[in-house]
Parts: sequence; C-alpha cells; structure tokens
Amino acid sequence: MGNMKLRLGMIGGGPGAFIGAIHRIAARMDDEYSLVCGVFSSDAEKSASMGSTLGLEKKRIYASYRQLIEEEALLSAEERVQVISIVTPNHLHFEPAKLALENGFHVILDKPATFSLAEAIELKKICEKTGRLFCLTHTYTGYPMVKEARQVVLSGKLGEITKIYVEYPQGWLSRFEEGSGDNKQASWRTDPAKSGIAGAMGDIGTHAFNLLEYVSGLQVVKLCADVNTVVAGRQLDDDGAVLLKFSNGSSGVLMATQIASGEENNIKIRVYGQQGGLEWQQSDANTLKLMMADKPVQLLRTGGSYLSSFAGQNTRTPAGHPEGYLEAFANLYRNFAQTIKASLASQQPSPEQLDFPGIEEGVRGMAFIENVIRSGKSDQKWSSFSLEI
Amino acid sequence: MGNMKLRLGMIGGGPGAFIGAIHRIAARMDDEYSLVCGVFSSDAEKSASMGSTLGLEKKRIYASYRQLIEEEALLSAEERVQVISIVTPNHLHFEPAKLALENGFHVILDKPATFSLAEAIELKKICEKTGRLFCLTHTYTGYPMVKEARQVVLSGKLGEITKIYVEYPQGWLSRFEEGSGDNKQASWRTDPAKSGIAGAMGDIGTHAFNLLEYVSGLQVVKLCADVNTVVAGRQLDDDGAVLLKFSNGSSGVLMATQIASGEENNIKIRVYGQQGGLEWQQSDANTLKLMMADKPVQLLRTGGSYLSSFAGQNTRTPAGHPEGYLEAFANLYRNFAQTIKASLASQQPSPEQLDFPGIEEGVRGMAFIENVIRSGKSDQKWSSFSLEI
Amino acid sequence: MGNMKLRLGMIGGGPGAFIGAIHRIAARMDDEYSLVCGVFSSDAEKSASMGSTLGLEKKRIYASYRQLIEEEALLSAEERVQVISIVTPNHLHFEPAKLALENGFHVILDKPATFSLAEAIELKKICEKTGRLFCLTHTYTGYPMVKEARQVVLSGKLGEITKIYVEYPQGWLSRFEEGSGDNKQASWRTDPAKSGIAGAMGDIGTHAFNLLEYVSGLQVVKLCADVNTVVAGRQLDDDGAVLLKFSNGSSGVLMATQIASGEENNIKIRVYGQQGGLEWQQSDANTLKLMMADKPVQLLRTGGSYLSSFAGQNTRTPAGHPEGYLEAFANLYRNFAQTIKASLASQQPSPEQLDFPGIEEGVRGMAFIENVIRSGKSDQKWSSFSLEI
Amino acid sequence: MGNMKLRLGMIGGGPGAFIGAIHRIAARMDDEYSLVCGVFSSDAEKSASMGSTLGLEKKRIYASYRQLIEEEALLSAEERVQVISIVTPNHLHFEPAKLALENGFHVILDKPATFSLAEAIELKKICEKTGRLFCLTHTYTGYPMVKEARQVVLSGKLGEITKIYVEYPQGWLSRFEEGSGDNKQASWRTDPAKSGIAGAMGDIGTHAFNLLEYVSGLQVVKLCADVNTVVAGRQLDDDGAVLLKFSNGSSGVLMATQIASGEENNIKIRVYGQQGGLEWQQSDANTLKLMMADKPVQLLRTGGSYLSSFAGQNTRTPAGHPEGYLEAFANLYRNFAQTIKASLASQQPSPEQLDFPGIEEGVRGMAFIENVIRSGKSDQKWSSFSLEI
Repeated sequence: MGNMKLRLGMIGGGPGAFIGAIHRIAARMDDEYSLVCGVFSSDAEKSASMGSTLGLEKKRIYASYRQLIEEEALLSAEERVQVISIVTPNHLHFEPAKLALENGFHVILDKPATFSLAEAIELKKICEKTGRLFCLTHTYTGYPMVKEARQVVLSGKLGEITKIYVEYPQGWLSRFEEGSGDNKQASWRTDPAKSGIAGAMGDIGTHAFNLLEYVSGLQVVKLCADVNTVVAGRQLDDDGAVLLKFSNGSSGVLMATQIASGEENNIKIRVYGQQGGLEWQQSDANTLKLMMADKPVQLLRTGGSYLSSFAGQNTRTPAGHPEGYLEAFANLYRNFAQTIKASLASQQPSPEQLDFPGIEEGVRGMAFIENVIRSGKSDQKWSSFSLEI
Repeated sequence: MGNMKLRLGMIGGGPGAFIGAIHRIAARMDDEYSLVCGVFSSDAEKSASMGSTLGLEKKRIYASYRQLIEEEALLSAEERVQVISIVTPNHLHFEPAKLALENGFHVILDKPATFSLAEAIELKKICEKTGRLFCLTHTYTGYPMVKEARQVVLSGKLGEITKIYVEYPQGWLSRFEEGSGDNKQASWRTDPAKSGIAGAMGDIGTHAFNLLEYVSGLQVVKLCADVNTVVAGRQLDDDGAVLLKFSNGSSGVLMATQIASGEENNIKIRVYGQQGGLEWQQSDANTLKLMMADKPVQLLRTGGSYLSSFAGQNTRTPAGHPEGYLEAFANLYRNFAQTIKASLASQQPSPEQLDFPGIEEGVRGMAFIENVIRSGKSDQKWSSFSLEI
Repeated sequence: MGNMKLRLGMIGGGPGAFIGAIHRIAARMDDEYSLVCGVFSSDAEKSASMGSTLGLEKKRIYASYRQLIEEEALLSAEERVQVISIVTPNHLHFEPAKLALENGFHVILDKPATFSLAEAIELKKICEKTGRLFCLTHTYTGYPMVKEARQVVLSGKLGEITKIYVEYPQGWLSRFEEGSGDNKQASWRTDPAKSGIAGAMGDIGTHAFNLLEYVSGLQVVKLCADVNTVVAGRQLDDDGAVLLKFSNGSSGVLMATQIASGEENNIKIRVYGQQGGLEWQQSDANTLKLMMADKPVQLLRTGGSYLSSFAGQNTRTPAGHPEGYLEAFANLYRNFAQTIKASLASQQPSPEQLDFPGIEEGVRGMAFIENVIRSGKSDQKWSSFSLEI
Repeated sequence: MGNMKLRLGMIGGGPGAFIGAIHRIAARMDDEYSLVCGVFSSDAEKSASMGSTLGLEKKRIYASYRQLIEEEALLSAEERVQVISIVTPNHLHFEPAKLALENGFHVILDKPATFSLAEAIELKKICEKTGRLFCLTHTYTGYPMVKEARQVVLSGKLGEITKIYVEYPQGWLSRFEEGSGDNKQASWRTDPAKSGIAGAMGDIGTHAFNLLEYVSGLQVVKLCADVNTVVAGRQLDDDGAVLLKFSNGSSGVLMATQIASGEENNIKIRVYGQQGGLEWQQSDANTLKLMMADKPVQLLRTGGSYLSSFAGQNTRTPAGHPEGYLEAFANLYRNFAQTIKASLASQQPSPEQLDFPGIEEGVRGMAFIENVIRSGKSDQKWSSFSLEI
C-alpha cells in the first residue's frame, strides 16, 4: 500500500497562536498527515500569509471555516481534506466541529471540547449520528508513562484505589497580563466571551480532571470546589481546588492554579491503592514511580523492555533518549490517524491505536467545568457530578 | 561559666515507644541536657529496666508521673530535675504537664498538645500562670531550611501570599495494623480513648497545619474538610483533605493521609506569593527551592553562607553534610535549652533561640483537630476556624 | 516569501536502522525540508519498499548512493535534491559524502564523521574546495540548555575553567549481543570492518568529546587513555576512561562505557571555573544547573525568559513543556536549513543559525578516536592530541 | 546488666576544629560513651576552657596527650578512660595512637590513619601486638545505604563487577584560603608539615578510595594518576583523577577535587556488574539506586523492611525520617562501642557490629596516598599498587 498520508486541514492557529504551531508539529512528527488546507485567522490577509508560509496552495487557504468546509466538501474524494484540526479559542469550537462532522470530515479538537456543556452534549450526538471520528487533544494522556500508569491501575496491581491527588500548578497568570492585549494567550483565556464560564478550571483544570479519570479508570461522582479569582481585575477564575469522591467510594483532591508564581507547567498525578501507589509528573515525564508497600520504589522508564504495549507503541527512541511534550501530542495525532486508516481499510484498530481522548472525554470535561464553577459558588458542601446542569 | 547541662526528666518512652527514643537522642545531641530521672512505663518493672538501661540512679526511676514530679520537687534546687519531657500518648499529656508546670518545672511535650482543645486552652492558662517555659515538639519547624522558608516569607520577598499547599502522605496505616496489638504505634494512634477524636488529622494533620502557619506567618480562618476512614474496622480517620482560607484572604489546601500505600513520610509545603514561590519537602530536607517569577529557580542549601541566622544557628556541619530528622528534633531541644538558660541567667534569649513551638501552637493545633473533625461531619461548606468548640 | 522547503535526500536508514528514522523525524519537525529521494538499503527491494512507505516517487528511490547522486545531479535546479543526509554505518560515510559534495549537494552526516581520521581530513578539504555546507549530527549540542551552558562559559561568568568532567554511561552492550545478528545496532557497531578502529570510543566517546569541547570552548591537547574490551568475544572496545589536559592548562576526565549494566543513555557534563561551575545531563535535559561559589544553586530551565538567544531560538514551547532528544536533533536540522537558506539568499546566517557541528568537529572527533585508541595501547602516560597519526 | 557507658577521652578537637565537635556528637548520639577526659589544644588554657565547657572534671583535662595517657593509665580500672579518640591533624596521629594502644586503650582515629604509609604499617603492628581495638573514621561507610550497597555486591546480585566510578567533588578550596590563617581547616590541610605529602588526595581521595574498596569488596592493584595543584601558591595537590585496575581484572576511575567551585561535598559511587549496577551519593544519602538490566530501576530506602541487617542495625528511625552525616558517623562509634563491649564480656561481636573501618583500611588508605602521589609524578602509565614505597 505504501505511504498514505491523511489530508489534514486546520482551522485557527495563526500568528501568535501557541497551540496551532504545536498541533502542526504533532501532525508532522510521524508523517501520518499532509496539511492541505486551512483558515488560520479571521483576518483573511493573515490567514493567507500563514497558509503561504506553510506551503499551502493558494486556493486551499480559506477566509472562513465555513468556506473551508463547504468548498473542500465539493472536491473529489481523492483530493479533499479528510481530517480537520480545530485550534481556535473555545467559543469557536462547536460550530466548525459540527459543520465538519456533518460534512463528512473527521475532527481533531483542542480542549476543552466546547464553550458549554450543552454544546459538548450536542457535539456528542453529532459524532454518533455522523459516525465520523473525533479526537480531543488532552495531551497528557499521550505520554507513554501516563499510558503505562493507566495500565498499572487497570491490571489491579495497586489493589482497590483509595486515594488520588492530581495537581496542575502554573505561574504565568500570577500578574494581570491580559490588559494590554500583548499577551494573546492571556487575553482570550481570561475573557468569558471566548473562554466560557471558567478560566483556570477550564484551561488546565480539565487537563487534570482528564488525567485523573484516564489513569484511574474511575469517575468523579461528587465534588466540593473552592474556586478563586486571585489577581485583581481578572474576569474569570485563576485558581481552584476541588475535593472529589469517586465511583468506587474513594476520594481525591484536584488542584489547578495559574497564579502559583514561579511554577512552570508541572501537572502531576498520584494514585494510591491498597497494595501500592504510583506517581507521574510532567517535569520528569519519562519516569513512572511505582511504590508497592514494603518494597523498593520502582522507576519505570520510557523505552523499558518491561513496559506494556501501550507505552511501547507510543515511544520512538530507545530508553534514555527523552521524549517530551511534542511527542506526547504527536501520539494523539498518530493514534487517531491509525484509527482512521484502519477504518478506511475496514479494519478494527488495535486497543493501543484507539487509546486517545474522544467526545466522551469532551463531555465529561465540560461537565467538570460547569460542576466545579457551580460548586464554587454554592454554600452546599458536596454536590453530585452531573451531566445536566 | 563552663558547662551547665539542664537536668532532664522523662515521662513515657518505654520499650517499643518510637518517639521516646527520638526525644532522648535529640536531648543528647548538643549536650545541653543530662537525663536524671524518669518514669518510662506504667508497668513499674519495665520502667525500672528502661531507667537502668539509660543509666539512671535507681531512686530516680519512678513508678508514676505523679511520684516523679512530687518527689523531684522535694529535692534540692541543685539536684532536682529542671525540665520534664512528656512523650506519652495523647490522653496522658495534660495531667502530667499540668502537674509539672505547677511544681515549677519546664515542660517539653510531644504533639499534639493534649487530648482535647479544652485541655490545651487550660494548659495555656497554666503556662501563663506559672511562668514556666513550654516547648511542643513539632519537629519540622526545627529543620534549618524550614526556618529559612519562614524568613523568606517574612522578608516579603515573595510578595503578598496568594496560595499555600501543604501535604503529609504516609502509607503505614494502609492496612489494618491495629488489630493484633503487635504494632504499638498503630494501636494507640487508632484508639479514640488514647488518641482523641482524630487519627491521621491529629497525628500528622497537626504537623502539616503547624508547618503551614509557621512558614507562612498566616492563620487559618475558615476551612472545609473531607475526613475519611478508609481502612475497614478502623475507629478513627486515616485520611483527610482540607480547603483553607487564611487571614490575608488567600487560600490553600492541606492534605494528610496515612493510607497512601507506598509513601514514607514526605511532608511538603509550597507557598506562593505575587512575586514568587517556595517549596520544601522532608525527603530533600536540606534544600529550599525558591522560585522567583521570570528568574532561574534557586536551591538554597543547609550550610550556605547566604542563609539567615535562623538557618545558620540550627546547623552543625558545613554545607553538603546532610542533617536530618534527628538534628531537626535536636534543634527544638537546643533552642529550648538555651532559652531556659537565658532565663536562668536573667538574659533575653535571642530570636533564634526563641524560635520553637510553644503552647500557642499547641492550642491552635488542637483547634485544628476539632475544627477539621467538625467540618468533616458537617454538610455546611465553610466553617470558621474557632477556638471555642 | 512564503514557504520554501529544502529538498532532502537520504542515504541509508532502511528497516531496522535506528538513526535513519530519527533523522527523518528531525527533518520533519520544523517543516524546513521535504524528503524527495533516497536509497535506504543496499538491497534494492528493501530500499524500494522503504521509499514507497515514505511516499517517495518511484523514480527517485535509487539502488545505490552513486546512482542517487549522479541522477539527481542531472535533474533541473528546481527539482533536484539540495541536501543529502547520510545515515549509513561509518565505513560508508566518506565515499557518499565526497560524491555528494563534489556534485554540489550540501551534506548532513551522522557521527562519527568517517571511518578514519585520514578520511575526515580529506573530507574537510573537499568541503573547503566545493564550498558546500556540512553538518555533523552531534545531537547533544542541539539541546537548548547545552547551548546555554556554552554561552555561560563563553561569557566568563565561571571565570577561568579549571576542571571538566564528561561522562557517557550506557549499559546496552553489557552482554554479548552481536553474535546472533538479530541486534543490527550491536552488530555493526562492534564490527571493525564497519565501525573502524573503535567501538564505544567512536560511538559515544566522540559525543562526550564533542560536548566537552563545545561547551567549554577549550581543546584537548594531551591525553592518557584506559581503553577496555570488557565483554568476552567482542572485537572492539566497549569501555574507556581518558585523563585530559586542555589548551588553557586545566585538566579533565572523559568516561564512556557501553557495559555499565542498567544505565540508559545519560550523557553528562560538569565544567568548573574559578568562580563557579555548571552541570547538564540528558536525563534532566531541560535543566542547566549553575553553581556559583557561595550562592544558591540556580536551575536554568528551557523556555526561561532569562536565557540567551542561543537557547531561546532552539526551543518550540513555553517553559515546563519538556523538549527532548528529537527536538535537540531537529535543532541541528533546522539551524542547518536556515544557514543553507541564508546562503541561497546571499544573506549572512545569524550566529544562532550557524551554531551546529561541522566538518571541523568531524576531524577533531576522528582525531579523538585515533588518539585514544593509540594511547590505550601505549605504555607512555601522556601523549599529545595530534591530528597526524 | 543496665547501662554501661564506655569512658571516652579525646585528643584534639579544640575551638575551631570542625571534626572534633563531630566526633563528640557521634559519641553522644547513642549513649554508648561518656566523655571523661581530654586534651583539646596544645595551648593549655584553650584546652582547659574547652574541657570545662564540655563538663569535664578539671583534673582530667590534660595539657598534653602524653600526660593524658600516662596519668589515665594510673587510675583505677573502674575510673580510667577506656577508649581514646584522636582528632588532631595528620602529623599528630601516630604518636598518640601508639602511646594509647601501648597503654592499653582502644583507639578511634580520624582519617587518614597517619602522616605516612610507614607510620600506618607500624601502627598496624602495634595494634596486633597490643590486641587493642582500633577504629578509623571513614564516615561514609557508616551510612546504612552504603552498607546495603556492599551487601548487594557481596550477594552476587550484580554479577561479576566490571566497572567502578567513585568521585568526591568539593569546591571549598577553589580559592587560596590558606593564606590568612583565618581558615583553620584550609591552613593545616594544605600544609605539608601537618597534612603529609598529599592535600586533596589525602583529605578526600582516601574517603573515595575507602568507599570503593568497602562497597566493591575489590582491591586496587594498579593505578595511573593525574594529580594537580590548581590554585596558585598552594603547596599540596587540590585535585586529582586516577585510573584504576582491580583485583578481579576490572577497571575504574576515582576523581577527587577540592577546586570544583560551587560543589559541596557530594561523594558518589557507582558499581556495575554483568547483571546490573548500583549508585549511591551523599546528597541523597537515604537512597540506594539499584539498576538491574532490563528491569525498572529500584530505589532502596533507609528504613525499608526489605533491607539487610547491616542497613537495619544502623538506622534509628522509620523510613522517611532522613538520617544524615552525623548518624553515619555515630554508627561507627556505636558499632565500635558494641564491639568493645562484646570483647569486655568475652563475647563474639556480630558481623554487623564488626562492620567499621580499622587499621587495615588505614594502611591501605595511606598506601593509596603514596601510590597516587608517586604515580602523579611519574611518566610511567601504570604502576602497581604497593604497600612498600
């Protein structure tokens, strides 16, 4: 069969956009995609310039997502885009995703899924109806040692899970950065019109939440949130901590903040069971710490011959050659591509290929946001984690 | 003046008692004390045997704390004990401490201060009335880099404090250890008749709480607690997490658990301000991590010439010779001794010498316990941190 | 100007070749190249199959490096390959590189440069004569924090350099792996007909040597080597340690081994000067440890706003998103591409763009191999580091 | 039997002496000794003042080591000193040690054993002749995880040993500190009349050498040394690196330096065998890293229930309460005391009690110094490690 690159289009990701460039590197890393079209900015000139820099044919650089989807849909099956990557701010997730799915395209969507929980639920229905494939880029689940962590938990090695801590400390919003407009990232993330009802809880809290449910295989069923806006003048939350109860009766804590001055981006998870615990953190991403009671601590390392196939198939280099954030991101893209290709070939993708976040995780992430914000405002201690808010 | 060792007596700390041996090492380390009397067990034979092993004169090995205090009080001023160290389980703190203070002895008391908040408040009054000196052994404040952390915060270098995380994960009670009676430590700590209304929250939660208030210089004013008994059959809590509000309006999280299987004893604190943050953890006790925004992370190290006098005077060796838990404990004993000696010489102790936990910390620690347990049982989200429960 | 990808060809890198796949990811990462032709194996069928998998046009998958170079040279200037990447074993470096350069192509060559020092010296002359550009993939100099380390040294901040330690411990050859032929990597690296006169000293000793000279800005002038073949039956060295004297009179130690059982790939360098020292190791690649005398240790981190432009321009993500080995490798490719593009545009590349290893480093690396092997066999303690052996 | 403290005397350790205070803490830690006499300075007044501060009886504070030994020898068996600790600079080791042994006292001697190899060999004969017990304070062998490392090697778990790296980097002599006389530690250590023929090689090189032979159970049989005096004006070496060959045919590297500016005191050892390797370093003293080929790395931790009795009996606290340098030092004192007490009771000490460095290690350490200095000056590459120089 030789090489078959999937034809990729991109919506968003113009100049100054952090995540668009990341998506493009992720898409290139394993040669599974070929970028064929895009709309990179609402400013047609900026969009054209970026498209040209990326080497796109002029005619496939569009002026709006609607134009992109509608015109690509008219192209021949051999030529038209197959997968559309949407990397716009949150308020511009749902409509393009809906349109893309309904026009027969597979969709990669940056997190959180949508602007509201209602949109996410609607999007899930559209996925189901159209049968198109959907990937939500919760990057951290792409790390081989996060995948291994999940496999360790699922194997039962830790015993029944009793406690989970997950945290995501950042410091980059510890000052009022959004005023000048110079910091594009700060500006939209703190703007309720673009970000939604949550700031930090949506931007990074959802990552922590997704990591927790992914690794533990448990679901949050109750929560009690403390949500704060620490920096004066800010419109959305920039800090929060949430007490959690899980489906198996155990408990946990989720902490996410963007005002921990001096911190970088050190998302970390610890899961404990009756027999032992595990710990993973992004700052030492290639190590999974396994602590079995009354045994030496074990450090499982990316590339280790003793790892599961889920870790093994998401690694490109021998042990000791550190893989990082971009490789984790690329793992999502690659697994999604291989799943699509299997589908095109009417084959069943492997469990490893199917191991990427989808719309179900998108719905739960949006539910997390709305439940946390609601709980944060409530005097009631515990509230049920609900998909209907 | 030559050497003047303070004459020390001990109540508790018989065979199998973990903390009694620690207290004795701490007392010996810097040659400030000479153990002259004790009652080490309610079993007179065991007490006599331990006293003999410790080289005490037979006549100064007593059969009860009451006998010890009353008979020592009759000895000449040159001979009788000056400081009494009480290392019994919690239910046996108040009475001996009261009697010792009222008979003119200074008191070192193992944490938490008492069995109940009411007792602690009463003990505080007795301290004030008798004018005797009092030290509560919250060990972690004895670490030089913890002292440095406090000095960094007090100096204003971090700016206004905005967030605090403190955690104390242990795994040793992740199974039901208290049944057989073989594990003496587990048995009394999980027995409400000996430990009080709290298990983990009293045993290690109070350490975390004390560390937090010590380092930050802030006080908890509101809290919302999730308190759990994870191991089946256990009578007291073995796990908890608490959302906190501080006196300056900022917030924090305290986590303490004894069921984090595989964990040792890694108490850790992170304090963030508007300009930067700091981090300390016992597993790397000689390092204080200072993270100023937009600067390289700094690692301050025990023995560094750039440290404050508070760190410097609590260190015995040049940088790079690790000091640990026993040295931290010994710092409490030494500072307390030097404060007593200054008092005996009618001198003002230095701020560094006075830097040990006292009855005020004892009262707040007991209030923490009662507030947390109450909040844990309540449906109300936030409750005020109160000294009157 | 829009996008202009350099047309890249590859010689070597067929199925089972570790480094070929790495080169291709590195070339793709920043979208500076487009792979247009290649010969991937001496077996024409394997070559064709790999070329097809990579999506090459059939006619540009060649059967020999000679055919590739000669036929590409006949294509039009707009079509023919511009840069040729050579990723074959050492004995197949010189001839293709020579032919490529002489036919007007720029060359990327995997390390060590050649099979012998004589070849490297000859290749240098060819580079000079043809004026074509040349990049040698000493990956570790591509790490942003290694670049920063060099800038710190060059800035004089450490004072005069007094001591350097560099080490490269691996464990993957601690057993006899080369017998069966199953381990392709082990087989050619331990075969003197393919690898040259050195095993470990050539494969990883040259990396350590290059890192040392790159970071310190010093040159080795004398050396005393202990070179060992530890595993029975092996034909080449698998372990060695070298005492070094540098151009400024200071001294150092280089250790490289492939029989340190249990080790992964943790290349590490420490450089000390009169005022302070620095440390970098691949296992924590995004941290540069700076130890100034009588000051707190500083941890400089990839992405830090305080870093030099050399670090900054070799980073793709904000601080805290770990970049790894593939990104370091890609930095070589990108800087080389930008240097070529500047040259095509008759512009002067920036110092940052020019910061990649070239043929000079290739000659010194080969001289290291020959000097070390000679010293290892000699009874004489110190020998001069010579380019004429 | 009750408490029987050994009566301890001290020679050296006056005001400003670093190591004397350390010895005293070590002696106090476990209550095995009672300091009964001493001579702390050649200045009688200083000696008297220090003795008084230490609480000694006036009549047992002596003016010279000769007086101490001779007068104590006249006291009754129940009163006179039993063990003499000698903590003077190297040139004042042999004579007092000899006199003490010959007068029937057991001796604890600070390292290195003597001023010259000849003295050490003579001292060994005196030990044998007198039958008195002897302990040399190579502190690092007192760490529980160093003891565990030795047990792991001896157990054969690593397979045949193939490579050893040991290093001891310090920075405190990176400038000329010895000029003013203010730095007492620097002054005598760099003075050939007091330190002997070696500076850094004697002061810390011997520690590294002892650690290597202790952990590996191997002996150095050949060596090739690079010995340097880096700081201008210094009389003795302050830096060196040594290539080593061991009794089993394997090789190693020893690095010791006092001019690694910014370093503290991070002695570290790595031992590799055919099946795996181990690593220990003082900066993380409570962890022993065990790296078995193709297995997760294991972290063995002080206090672990899975450790050997050699680690277990040299630990005072449960896992997670860090023990440090002073505890390691105290382990030497305690094991020596228990060995003496067993001898006094005509019992056989346990292997764990006997596990402290003695005169044999003293002789080998002095041989190391003389062999290294000789090799450093030689043009010959390899020289045999000889006890006759």
